[in-house]
Formats: sequence, structure tokens, C-alpha cells
Amino acid sequence: MDATNPAILADRFKTLHYDPEQDAVILLNRAKYPFETEYVTCDTVDAVAQAIERMIVQGGPPLAYAAGLGLALAEPTEAGYRAAAQRLLDTRPTADDLHHIIPQALDRALQALAKGSDPKQAVLTYVNSEIARGNQVSRRCGEHAASLLEDEDRVLTHCIAGAALCWMLWTAKQQGKRIHLIATETRPYLQGARLTAQCAKELGVEVTVITDGMPAHMMSQGMIDKFICAADRITMDGHITNKVGTFQIAIAAHYHGIPFYVLGYDGPDPNTPDASGIEIEWRDGKEVLFCGGKRVAVEGARALYPAFDITPPHLIAGIVTDKGIYPPTLIRRYWEQPTSGQSSKHSIENA
Amino acid sequence: MDATNPAILADRFKTLHYDPEQDAVILLNRAKYPFETEYVTCDTVDAVAQAIERMIVQGGPPLAYAAGLGLALAEPTEAGYRAAAQRLLDTRPTADDLHHIIPQALDRALQALAKGSDPKQAVLTYVNSEIARGNQVSRRCGEHAASLLEDEDRVLTHCIAGAALCWMLWTAKQQGKRIHLIATETRPYLQGARLTAQCAKELGVEVTVITDGMPAHMMSQGMIDKFICAADRITMDGHITNKVGTFQIAIAAHYHGIPFYVLGYDGPDPNTPDASGIEIEWRDGKEVLFCGGKRVAVEGARALYPAFDITPPHLIAGIVTDKGIYPPTLIRRYWEQPTSGQSSKHSIENA
Repeated sequence: MDATNPAILADRFKTLHYDPEQDAVILLNRAKYPFETEYVTCDTVDAVAQAIERMIVQGGPPLAYAAGLGLALAEPTEAGYRAAAQRLLDTRPTADDLHHIIPQALDRALQALAKGSDPKQAVLTYVNSEIARGNQVSRRCGEHAASLLEDEDRVLTHCIAGAALCWMLWTAKQQGKRIHLIATETRPYLQGARLTAQCAKELGVEVTVITDGMPAHMMSQGMIDKFICAADRITMDGHITNKVGTFQIAIAAHYHGIPFYVLGYDGPDPNTPDASGIEIEWRDGKEVLFCGGKRVAVEGARALYPAFDITPPHLIAGIVTDKGIYPPTLIRRYWEQPTSGQSSKHSIENA
Repeated sequence: MDATNPAILADRFKTLHYDPEQDAVILLNRAKYPFETEYVTCDTVDAVAQAIERMIVQGGPPLAYAAGLGLALAEPTEAGYRAAAQRLLDTRPTADDLHHIIPQALDRALQALAKGSDPKQAVLTYVNSEIARGNQVSRRCGEHAASLLEDEDRVLTHCIAGAALCWMLWTAKQQGKRIHLIATETRPYLQGARLTAQCAKELGVEVTVITDGMPAHMMSQGMIDKFICAADRITMDGHITNKVGTFQIAIAAHYHGIPFYVLGYDGPDPNTPDASGIEIEWRDGKEVLFCGGKRVAVEGARALYPAFDITPPHLIAGIVTDKGIYPPTLIRRYWEQPTSGQSSKHSIENA
């Protein structure tokens, strides 16, 4: 498979990078894309942290990469790096990538300081190698996922499943499989209507947008063959955390006997044995009261915005990783497999 | 219970009526309410039909009443009334009230023509008596529903469950029960964020808006005690049709062991024995691509908009009517009970 994936979101370097001339992190503004293709220049640690909090960059790996590059902007002292790492870690509690990359990047910076070498360069080298590795993981994960698809499959997805989704769709297309993607719009941020639909468009895959309340009805009408989405964190016992709404669709899929596959990228988090250790981020409820910048709820109404939910393993047919496809209850075996050449972000725990 | 319900939507005469001076039907624009309190004047049958199609009036009974009043605007000949009735019937296929009121109103008009009396007055008298009866049905249904609620219950609802919901909340409040309402925003028209939240506000009931993807997560966190919504049509074997999204929440409620009660107003449709006879309206998919008038999906994406879905009886704990509360599989018994004084919109079928 030598073709170049045309979707912008399939290659993280196209959406975020460090610019040495400006000494700044440049981020595609995912809150506006694809209606506007705006790149935001963040020249301080705090600017990067705020960009993550404001969802200018979102999705587990991309926001972790942005944070990692942001660490390179810290004041080049031990105290400076430690404070910057904490500021960046505090942005989002749920996704696991952030909580792996920042401690690792901090470690590289402190080692460089101790050795008298350039800490900024140490951080950038490490994070850029992680982005490159993440691109490879996404591609392999997407290729394995494509093997699950049959010609004319109608695949439901929720939120944006990122680079692996792009690679899955691209690989299936190269294999001559005609896939129809059904994207939930994914309120309140509309990642489905914007980002997922845009990826499908760039890939030449037909896409239909539905509201977040419609999946069960579509399933009952025989209009959905598979449900496939990503995960912000996978536990060692096979629970997955993903954008709120995933759990509800997974229950509906199970009710209808429709398989739910998770694009699990580089596997479960060895530091999260089960769901009890996952902190679900509560974002500002006000975000639910608006849609596309316009107020949609009456004044005086409260709102709640749990950003993620947790789906238990019995609702999941398989977790697709860069190393292959696992039953959710056996996902810990991911860490017992050879790493097939690439370095691993995780320390391997004996499960 | 003598208190006057303060919610505008609790009294249909406050939201729609025939104005003899203008010879027109006046409708509260529910597509804009409560952000704007605009009354639309419809002085032709086609204007009323378009108002229904454009969701200026929505909800099973209200749109049926608007259509019924609209029939009074027909050319006062047999052909004129027949054409008008067909135009009005063609607006929305799923809700049953429309398909009861229009044939009945047509019948009154044709009888008046045959007798040489005023057909317009015959239509108005009949429809206004139906609106008054509907108000009574709503109140009794809401009072029965209030008996299901306990102090401090957190009640999830979807779309706008109309006058019966207002009466349920009002009655519970009079009984000293503090109810917290959780309203799904209900995309694409946001009836929950607008109309349900507004009703709660007018009633002094605390309300929290969530997106349509959040109910299952809220249930898993112990944040919801009951799920209660309305139905556009109830079959004699206990299936209910309601705003799309209801079925998905009902599956999630069943998964979590949370009871789902349906505000069934004046019972099942005797002409719909089971779900096979229900036509689900497909509205223009473009409506999903916009939110509050603003485009939210990328150009080139298709969209689908099934307006309703069907929930089977095994997911329903009880159907609340003006005559009391029935297990869904026994809802046909509604028609075996005395009508407690009010005339019935339905011809009673022996089940």
C-alpha cells in the first residue's frame, strides 16, 4: 500500500508542528476546521494549554502532541519545565496519551539539562519521534480495521476517530470496497458533522450525517452494518473511554446485534487496570447551551457536559490496534506481543 | 387541584386559535419560541399546511388542532373541503391525532353543507371542543403521571412532552415534590433546549439541558431516576412512536433498569393494531445540516432525518393516560374502560 492518504487529519504533521523561526507551536484550529482553515500560533506554554482547553486541538493523540511540543516553549530551567509540564497535564484529565507524553518529554528535558545539552531540542526530538510513530500506529491500525469491512458496508461512527479512521477508509477504498460512512454530528462540538465528514470528503467516501439521537432507529431499519469509533483511553480489562454518546450507541448496537469495533491505536493504558481509575472530565455546561456559536437553549436553563463516557467490554466486538485485533477482555495481550519494530510509548507491564 | 397552570404550553388555546375578525388561524411560532414570541397569521388552508410542514406548530395534538382550524378556511363547497382536508392530511404522516381530527372535521363540514347550515361554524365548534377536551385529557394524564414521581426525582425527558408534562410538573409541585427535570436538547429542532426548558422555567422547576448523546452516561452515573416522554402514536399492542431519539434512550434506560413512562394522553390508536402500520416520516435531511439557522456540517455531506422512531413495549414500564396508568402490553384495555365523562376522539374498537 504505497498510496498517500489525502485526508489532512491522517497525518498529524499537517495539523500541528513546532516552527523554529517563530519559536512557536502551530495548530490547525479544529474548532473551526473545515469551515475555516486557520492555523493558530502559540508562542507560550500557557497559549498551548489554552488551545487544548478551548478544543483548538482535540483528540487523544493530537492534543498530547500539541502539549508535548508546548513543553519546548518552557523557561529552560528545571523549575520552568516542571511548572510547564504541570500546566499542560492539567488541561484534560481523561485521555491517556497526554499523561504519557508529558512525563516522558519532561524527563528528556531534565536529562538534557543535567548533561548540559539543549533541553528544547531534546523535547522536540522526542515529541516529533512520537508524532512519527503515532502516524505509523494510525496507519497500521486503520489497515487492520479495513480487513473487518466488506464491500458496501454502512459504517456508523461517532465524533472523529482520527487518523486511523482515515487510513481504514483509504485502505478499504484501495481494496475496492465501497464504504458508506454514517457520522453522528456529535454535539456540542459537531466533530462528526465537521471533521469526520470532511475526512470522508477528502477521501472520496460517501458520508451521511445524522443527529446523535438517530443511531438506534437507523439500526432498527437495517441501515447500519457496523459501529466503529476510537477511544481516548482503553483499560487493561477492556473498557473504553470515548466522546460522550459512544456508550449509548454501543448499547443500541448490542441490542440490535450490530458489532462495535474500537480503533484502539497503540493499545490499552498499562497504568489503568479498570474503569474505576478513569476520571471523566466535566467541561463547562455552557458549551451545551450553544451550537456553532449561537445560543440554542433558553436563558435560565442549566446544562451539564460530561465530555466522555465509558463502554464496558461486553458491548465491544473487538479492539483494533496497530498489532492486530483483540477481543476486549483480552486486550491486555497487546502488551505481551512483540512490538513489531516500533518503539513503544508505554512501559510494558506483565499482565 | 384548582391552581392555574402557568406554562403557556399547558393550554392549547394560548398557542393556537381561530380569529373571526381576520378569518385566520393564529399560531404561536414554536420554531422560534421562546427566543421570540411570534404569532403567525394563516389566512388560507395552504398557509396552515405550510406552517405545519415548517414546524411552526408541532407536537401531535397541537398540529392536529391547527389543521382542524385550518379546515375552516376551506372554500365552502364539498370539493373545497375535500381538497383542503387532503392538503392538511398530507402534511405529516406519523402522528395519529391529525388523522382523526381532519376526517371528523370534514364530516361535520359536509353534514352542515347537506343540511344547509354553516359548515365553517360546524368545523370550528367541533375543533374547539376537541381542543377543550384535549386540555382536560392533558391535565388528567399529567395528574396521573405526578403520582409516579417521588420527592427529589431526577426526571429525564426528550423533545417536548407537551401539556401533560406541564401538568405533571405542576401537580407534583403542588404536592410538595421537588422534581429536577433533565431535558435532552433534541436536535435538530431543539425542542428540549427551547420548549421543554421554557415550560420548566415558567413552572419554577429546575431544568438541566444535555445533548442527545448523554442520557446513557448520566444513567450510568446514577443521575437519572425516571425517563418520561410523550408519544405521537401508540399502537394497540403497546408500541409507541415518538420523536427520533426516544427509542435509543429507552434502550439505555432498560439497560440500566430505569423505568420509562410514556405520557399517552387519550390512549392508543384503535386503528393501529401494531407497529407495522406506522409510516415514519422522513423529513428533508438538510434540516440536520443546520442548527438554529446556521450550517453546522461540511458542504457535500448528505444527511438523513427520520422524524420519529418506534419503541417496543418491553422497554416501557407504563403508559400514562387520562384514565390511568397501563402496562404497555395491556394498553388496549384503555378502550374497555368507561370514558369518565368526556367524549372520545376515537371510535371504540372492541379489542
